[in-house]
Amino acid sequence: MQKELPVILVTNDDGIAAPGIRALVEAVKDLGRVIVVAPDSPQSGMGHAITIGHPLRLYRADIFDGIEAWQCSGTPVDCVKLAKDKILHRKADICVSGINHGANNSINVIYSGTMSAAMEAAIEGIPSVGFSSLDYNYNADFTVAKEVARTVTQRMLSAQLLPHTLLNVNIPITTPEDFRGLKICRQAYAKWEEEFDHRLDPRGKDYYWMTGKFLNMDDGTDTDVHALKDGYASVVPVKFDLTDYKVKEWLEKEWE
Amino acid sequence: MQKELPVILVTNDDGIAAPGIRALVEAVKDLGRVIVVAPDSPQSGMGHAITIGHPLRLYRADIFDGIEAWQCSGTPVDCVKLAKDKILHRKADICVSGINHGANNSINVIYSGTMSAAMEAAIEGIPSVGFSSLDYNYNADFTVAKEVARTVTQRMLSAQLLPHTLLNVNIPITTPEDFRGLKICRQAYAKWEEEFDHRLDPRGKDYYWMTGKFLNMDDGTDTDVHALKDGYASVVPVKFDLTDYKVKEWLEKEWE
Repeated sequence: MQKELPVILVTNDDGIAAPGIRALVEAVKDLGRVIVVAPDSPQSGMGHAITIGHPLRLYRADIFDGIEAWQCSGTPVDCVKLAKDKILHRKADICVSGINHGANNSINVIYSGTMSAAMEAAIEGIPSVGFSSLDYNYNADFTVAKEVARTVTQRMLSAQLLPHTLLNVNIPITTPEDFRGLKICRQAYAKWEEEFDHRLDPRGKDYYWMTGKFLNMDDGTDTDVHALKDGYASVVPVKFDLTDYKVKEWLEKEWE
Repeated sequence: MQKELPVILVTNDDGIAAPGIRALVEAVKDLGRVIVVAPDSPQSGMGHAITIGHPLRLYRADIFDGIEAWQCSGTPVDCVKLAKDKILHRKADICVSGINHGANNSINVIYSGTMSAAMEAAIEGIPSVGFSSLDYNYNADFTVAKEVARTVTQRMLSAQLLPHTLLNVNIPITTPEDFRGLKICRQAYAKWEEEFDHRLDPRGKDYYWMTGKFLNMDDGTDTDVHALKDGYASVVPVKFDLTDYKVKEWLEKEWE
């Protein structure tokens, strides 16, 4: 009897028409039965948002050769939830998200729709991974990123992983020749320093565009920021138990 | 010389007109100089979303007696970012978010705009806390929740806290007589089991409403779910370094 192919759920936050998700589909399509469920429009910065005040639309969108694909009007997390309940009718064997056009290392994991989609699957007990290229351009070269996505997906499918395993993989801007491989890292402590660009609309009313610069406050050599600077792809295992056990201990002594 | 009053930034995700934020303002208004910056519309379930594809509006909204207040067209996280750059021009001494109409214990911390606003402030180095009542009704009785919010805010202002301290406080539906006090907890492992309600619009096209039920998969007695059932307000310290150090160790052995 033939072994059943693993079901690979593919999603992203840049929208189903982004080159990054096409690169990801190409990278993993012969590793299992690929099903794409992705937002119908760009959803960058949506974090773990879900849609509760509006209904959702879900349409077939067969824009990948021979691959079942759906587009959804909601957020990346909505896509994963809808895929489970209305499309797959079973648990996927792995969820891969991306390849994002832009970095999701360090604190970006919190704001990232790419990573939140993968986290939603991990909460469901599906080993999951988000891939992000540091090149945010529409025409980014995904050669190295595709190779990384394929290698990591293969390793995850063949390893005995804990069901809630979730990886945040970022790929530097580099060539296959200069690429130095994977590096297991921790999340660097960094933040965004926002400066809102204040403008006046044609009726003289104020409005603001969010702009910001990324500030790395962490000089550790074991961080994702450091690995990426050195030409590695960073691999940070991520968890969704946000309890701070150190502060918990302190509070138990002081407050109870 | 008089000691300067602490600056208390108040925000929420139910919107500036929600009874919960009014209750919170009342609870803390004599503990410092209170400034409200909150969304102009309900933003439940927005998680850590930020607005990058649209500009933001920010207006005065002085609906609280004698308190400086602003409403913003963006997400809860946008409010905290705008408050820092365009309103406060200094670091707040504490950020309090809520009181949310509905529970944010356990896995809800991930989806919650209330908690994401507080987390954004904590990333900035401002001790922060989100308050949520298990009563999601518009006319919820906030008597106990206000008392809890006041006590926790006072304690946080007077303690030597680490700057990134972030607390997730949930308040059970109870009376002052039956309320059992604060309990320091860890986040319970739980998830939402979604069932999308499939309907047809007047033109015969499919659409879906997200519905779900909360599944607690965690029978620990040290969890927030357990404490709330016992009539305590749960206090979970939260962190934003999402690195899973256990999985990291395993990967370093197996993958590098």
